[in-house]
Amino acid sequence: MKGHLLSTEDLSRDDALLVLDTAERMARVAEASVRKLPTLRGRTVVNLFFEDSTRTRTSFEVAAKRLSADVINFSARGSSVSKGESLKDTAQTLEAMGADAVVCRHSASGAPHRLATWVRGSVVNAGDGTHEHPTQALLDAFTMRRRLGRVDGLAVTIVGDVLHSRVARSNVWLLATLGASVTVVAPPTLLPIGVSSWPVEVSYDLDAVLPKTDVVMMLRVQRERMSAAFFPTEREYSRRYGLDVDRAATLPEHALVMHPGPMVRGMEIASRVADSDRSTVVEQVANGVSVRMAVLYLLLGGSGEVS
Amino acid sequence: MKGHLLSTEDLSRDDALLVLDTAERMARVAEASVRKLPTLRGRTVVNLFFEDSTRTRTSFEVAAKRLSADVINFSARGSSVSKGESLKDTAQTLEAMGADAVVCRHSASGAPHRLATWVRGSVVNAGDGTHEHPTQALLDAFTMRRRLGRVDGLAVTIVGDVLHSRVARSNVWLLATLGASVTVVAPPTLLPIGVSSWPVEVSYDLDAVLPKTDVVMMLRVQRERMSAAFFPTEREYSRRYGLDVDRAATLPEHALVMHPGPMVRGMEIASRVADSDRSTVVEQVANGVSVRMAVLYLLLGGSGEVS
Amino acid sequence: MKGHLLSTEDLSRDDALLVLDTAERMARVAEASVRKLPTLRGRTVVNLFFEDSTRTRTSFEVAAKRLSADVINFSARGSSVSKGESLKDTAQTLEAMGADAVVCRHSASGAPHRLATWVRGSVVNAGDGTHEHPTQALLDAFTMRRRLGRVDGLAVTIVGDVLHSRVARSNVWLLATLGASVTVVAPPTLLPIGVSSWPVEVSYDLDAVLPKTDVVMMLRVQRERMSAAFFPTEREYSRRYGLDVDRAATLPEHALVMHPGPMVRGMEIASRVADSDRSTVVEQVANGVSVRMAVLYLLLGGSGEVS
Repeated sequence: MKGHLLSTEDLSRDDALLVLDTAERMARVAEASVRKLPTLRGRTVVNLFFEDSTRTRTSFEVAAKRLSADVINFSARGSSVSKGESLKDTAQTLEAMGADAVVCRHSASGAPHRLATWVRGSVVNAGDGTHEHPTQALLDAFTMRRRLGRVDGLAVTIVGDVLHSRVARSNVWLLATLGASVTVVAPPTLLPIGVSSWPVEVSYDLDAVLPKTDVVMMLRVQRERMSAAFFPTEREYSRRYGLDVDRAATLPEHALVMHPGPMVRGMEIASRVADSDRSTVVEQVANGVSVRMAVLYLLLGGSGEVS
Repeated sequence: MKGHLLSTEDLSRDDALLVLDTAERMARVAEASVRKLPTLRGRTVVNLFFEDSTRTRTSFEVAAKRLSADVINFSARGSSVSKGESLKDTAQTLEAMGADAVVCRHSASGAPHRLATWVRGSVVNAGDGTHEHPTQALLDAFTMRRRLGRVDGLAVTIVGDVLHSRVARSNVWLLATLGASVTVVAPPTLLPIGVSSWPVEVSYDLDAVLPKTDVVMMLRVQRERMSAAFFPTEREYSRRYGLDVDRAATLPEHALVMHPGPMVRGMEIASRVADSDRSTVVEQVANGVSVRMAVLYLLLGGSGEVS
Repeated sequence: MKGHLLSTEDLSRDDALLVLDTAERMARVAEASVRKLPTLRGRTVVNLFFEDSTRTRTSFEVAAKRLSADVINFSARGSSVSKGESLKDTAQTLEAMGADAVVCRHSASGAPHRLATWVRGSVVNAGDGTHEHPTQALLDAFTMRRRLGRVDGLAVTIVGDVLHSRVARSNVWLLATLGASVTVVAPPTLLPIGVSSWPVEVSYDLDAVLPKTDVVMMLRVQRERMSAAFFPTEREYSRRYGLDVDRAATLPEHALVMHPGPMVRGMEIASRVADSDRSTVVEQVANGVSVRMAVLYLLLGGSGEVS
């Protein structure tokens, strides 16, 4: 894999599998007594976050440091961006300072793509608007494969605010590439108009879908969208699309419950479900570090072997 | 010492002395030409600060880096905490990312204790509400021992807003464990109701106590509490409980003046006293790094010898 | 070079050349496969920024990390400074924690000088009020020398808000020391009263000066000053002092266009000029890292050879 990681829609099956296989080797580093590889020593990874996201930023920071890279956290707040500097000038500035990779989170869909046309280094999309969040989808697929042995052939159900979710989009494309069958379940107002062209089934009836589901992926409810016209009341949403204990009991015994975090417990997911054995919420976080190590390793062509 | 450092109230005399002895060896590292030990290489220390405290956060950061640990600063502002994530989910997220130790500052008394029940890694209390700030007490004891040769048998006077001070509480318990005699001096409104059960003498007359004091520890006046009902006027407070030059002159010649910082010069302490030879204010900061190195070293069971 | 780097006004010609020569060697590190030197291992560099400046802070951070120093970012926001701590106490606290160098940005002219009287470690002025920004001038001189082979004898024109510019001041002194001839061009309201005592020519006619210029240095327009009485309208400023395509065409063929960034494209400089071959804007950023590595290396007396 060379260049950038901007979306899963453009990611080939071979590259996706290469990331998952490399992440498997990275996960073994986390279990070693000294959890550090020298492979990216002397390389600089810049976290360029235009939206706050301590969780994702920290995951990339841990991943890069575990590979011995230097990490620079570049927050847009208080930077020259707020003095009117263009994204292009910011990008070229970071590259001139020696950034080998720029991990970019931006509220505008497509911002990392534009960034990638301006710099020679690697750009990793860490979430852009409602567009994509490719490392999240890769860590989700990695989690499925670790737990269930495969992704190919799985029935995956994605539930919630699909309209605004970059996590949903990245998962839809990657899961299709890897051979899973995806069903999205959401109120009609929270589905994008273009969903009919996606490689998914659409359902409005969560209860009908769950018994045939291998993996149910709950999306985060963003309370700030609650007041908007397209959203049912909190209680109504929770009643129809929340994963409570009774509903989770209708899943097949082997089925997984996933959530990208942070969770709103009691809203889209009940606490007892989130903490149950079939929940992978905490594993997803751990796997996120392994997957991001793999992505940085592959993009930056780290020297030396990963054993 | 294994597990966590949550309070000095629960700290055994043996563990307290182990920290002080280890800190002595760490202090020697600070004097070496290369001030760095490889002992925590590959370990990750997370600073989880729900209250701003650049000073304490920086001290832990320097300590961890000097032991070659990777440090992640996780500020609650702009994190998933502000999106409604629970402390438990934040803690499990950090652990899943590979945090070996979580250094936690929180406005709620007891927060680090709860954290410690949720993670396998080590939790260090860096100040919780009005409860405890154990590394501050340990560095204070370390400072006394370096200057006066012992803690056992010392007469220590703690002056100021004892009611709201976690520094006072941690010192009271640790000093009692180490055999010092503690007197607290404060206006009645700034003493906790439960003070009668503490292993301390209570006095309202600073002038009567000072001539019999080996160590006087001035607490920081928090101006934001000044307007509250329990506080005398600024001038009145300073006149009765401030350590001015005349008052400091009544101390025995060998006596120390301590302050946890940041100081409000001219209020609880006069500039000339703070900058005098008997003041340990700057040493306390330096000793803070040594003590925090010791704590991280002991909790994380660093590999290799500290020479 | 020992001690501090506080201004270029006080910098000897020998020391200035030593920085430039050392920066040349540092620039070679940036071209190596592993861009890291062990020379400052175990040293701690503190970025003490009282004004936001992600760009300058990041440049120093990259420079220090490339020399293997530990870097602590100490932001005044949320620190004990906001609790009333004096600059002196902050400085002594940082030194006690083991800061070998303090890189200081402050809105008050002279703050780094005062800092330097309180600490034993090295202070680097990273911009103080309207006074100086010495590493910016050094990287500008370094850029001229790399592009044109020398600084001595060059005709340098500095254009814009000279009154408020610490970049202009630092360049004026350094360029005079290095033998360049400097002309400043600005509206009369944006020139300091004392400019008559500076080693510069003053002109109000950019068009007359450009054909005789080897290097034109455009200063950033600070929009927040636009409303003030001393500033012409935005259009008027741009028309008379902006470097548009036609005006840039009157420069000699070999002449350079410089800008310290961040640029306000279309205001003080046209995009096509900023992106032209004669523009050094991006090189200046890269050279900034090399120059700051040199300064830290020389001040901290790094162990080992720079090859």
